[in-house]
Amino acid sequence: MAETGKQHNTYLPGHKDVKHHELRTAENCAAYLLPTLQMMAKENPSLALLDVGAGSGTISTSLARYLPHGQVTGVDLSEDILRSAAQHAEEVGAKNCHFQTGSVYQLPFPDGTFDVVHTHQMLCHLDSPVEALTELLRVTKRGGIVSIRETDMRTWSFWPMLPALERFFKIQLATHEAAGGTNAAGPQLISWALKAGAKREQVTMTQGSWCYSEPVEKQIWGTSWAQRVRAGEVGKKALDMGLAKKADLEEMAQAWEEWAQAEDACFACLHGEILIRK
Amino acid sequence: MAETGKQHNTYLPGHKDVKHHELRTAENCAAYLLPTLQMMAKENPSLALLDVGAGSGTISTSLARYLPHGQVTGVDLSEDILRSAAQHAEEVGAKNCHFQTGSVYQLPFPDGTFDVVHTHQMLCHLDSPVEALTELLRVTKRGGIVSIRETDMRTWSFWPMLPALERFFKIQLATHEAAGGTNAAGPQLISWALKAGAKREQVTMTQGSWCYSEPVEKQIWGTSWAQRVRAGEVGKKALDMGLAKKADLEEMAQAWEEWAQAEDACFACLHGEILIRK
Repeated sequence: MAETGKQHNTYLPGHKDVKHHELRTAENCAAYLLPTLQMMAKENPSLALLDVGAGSGTISTSLARYLPHGQVTGVDLSEDILRSAAQHAEEVGAKNCHFQTGSVYQLPFPDGTFDVVHTHQMLCHLDSPVEALTELLRVTKRGGIVSIRETDMRTWSFWPMLPALERFFKIQLATHEAAGGTNAAGPQLISWALKAGAKREQVTMTQGSWCYSEPVEKQIWGTSWAQRVRAGEVGKKALDMGLAKKADLEEMAQAWEEWAQAEDACFACLHGEILIRK
Repeated sequence: MAETGKQHNTYLPGHKDVKHHELRTAENCAAYLLPTLQMMAKENPSLALLDVGAGSGTISTSLARYLPHGQVTGVDLSEDILRSAAQHAEEVGAKNCHFQTGSVYQLPFPDGTFDVVHTHQMLCHLDSPVEALTELLRVTKRGGIVSIRETDMRTWSFWPMLPALERFFKIQLATHEAAGGTNAAGPQLISWALKAGAKREQVTMTQGSWCYSEPVEKQIWGTSWAQRVRAGEVGKKALDMGLAKKADLEEMAQAWEEWAQAEDACFACLHGEILIRK
């Protein structure tokens, strides 16, 4: 990897406890893009789509299903996670989807390479989201689109409101920003797009959500967070910052497990979504 | 109106500055219901739908368009707002939609009257949401559905983050609960449904959002809040509670106006949505 001079251009929480990433599909994470994607694919079946920050690849491969005659390229900084992504693509038979390492600050493609450039929950982890967005626009063809979905971390909405979960929520916000990320990424997307050179009339915004309330979803979401608090980077960061002691973290992990079992439990959060027509 | 013995069963902010209510349609406020509604209408074209807390009637009339051979009844406590609703129904030619006054705690209908019972942002204003939900279930036919959408007021997500808007957001949360409402209504919907006697397997949850980022939406939303802060019930309550002085409120009203003009502005919030199959 070339040295880009940017900080925080990796995925801070780490890829250890990311079972919940496998819940992610084009349908539940990029629904706002699908009507436009389908329309573009009708006009040009051999579309080229770039998915930046592809991670475990479940969104990339499900986007690839909408482009049976097109090509999807998934890029991520982490070679490790891309091995899982490639294996997943093979398992689901996504022959038109391949993966390669790369930094969003210096994408290994010439100007105007892709018809669609997509990213999901990636800019929120960066210290220079506007520079990253400028790079996404650079590799997009004229007439193509950039498609971005970022959460507003401040909008985590859950029930039951277990006191330890409320404490965890505060820690999550504090550690995310301390590590260089942006909690309010979703609502800033138009602002970032304008700073990256787009004009307002090129941008449309929607807002979407996640909702986990069924047993399997709750189990995966609750267990992933319990593990991340107990032994992952979020827990470590909280200890380093003096925001929690080991015993507090254990209590929070148990609260996530209790949440996952609660009959009336739900979790949701908001995501800003923009399409930029280049 | 019969005395129901329940408090806070009216619409606290008042119906004075509700231009933004007219933005509301079945498509942007009840999208989660539409596939089920269309399926039910295919099986039984003469469906009876009740919309409780119908207000200015824009959701009721747009739901009525999905039931050309069915009937929509809109109920609200306020005779005044129902006059606007009836006028709106006439303007848009919704002949299968009529309105009548009624309290959600004591709906003027026998058990099992309606195939679909819908409400939007109503339970969040009540002091006894579970009793209201029990009443919604009572008037629903066996095999019918109750369809509820309630916001989580804590998830207001806006940009730019003008300091006066952030202060307003805190006042909005404080006054809403002080007046007997529930800020975290959306995430409690499953919990309330279980308390009202539903079984978990009868309930499905989704989460939706509003997003205002285009000029007309921003103008209507920003202006409505500016008026409510300047001369409406929210401002009065804030003064009564000692949360703000007249000059603070004026600053907040101006911030809403500034927000409405900002090129990069957006507003969003989460809504919990449930369908209960009776």
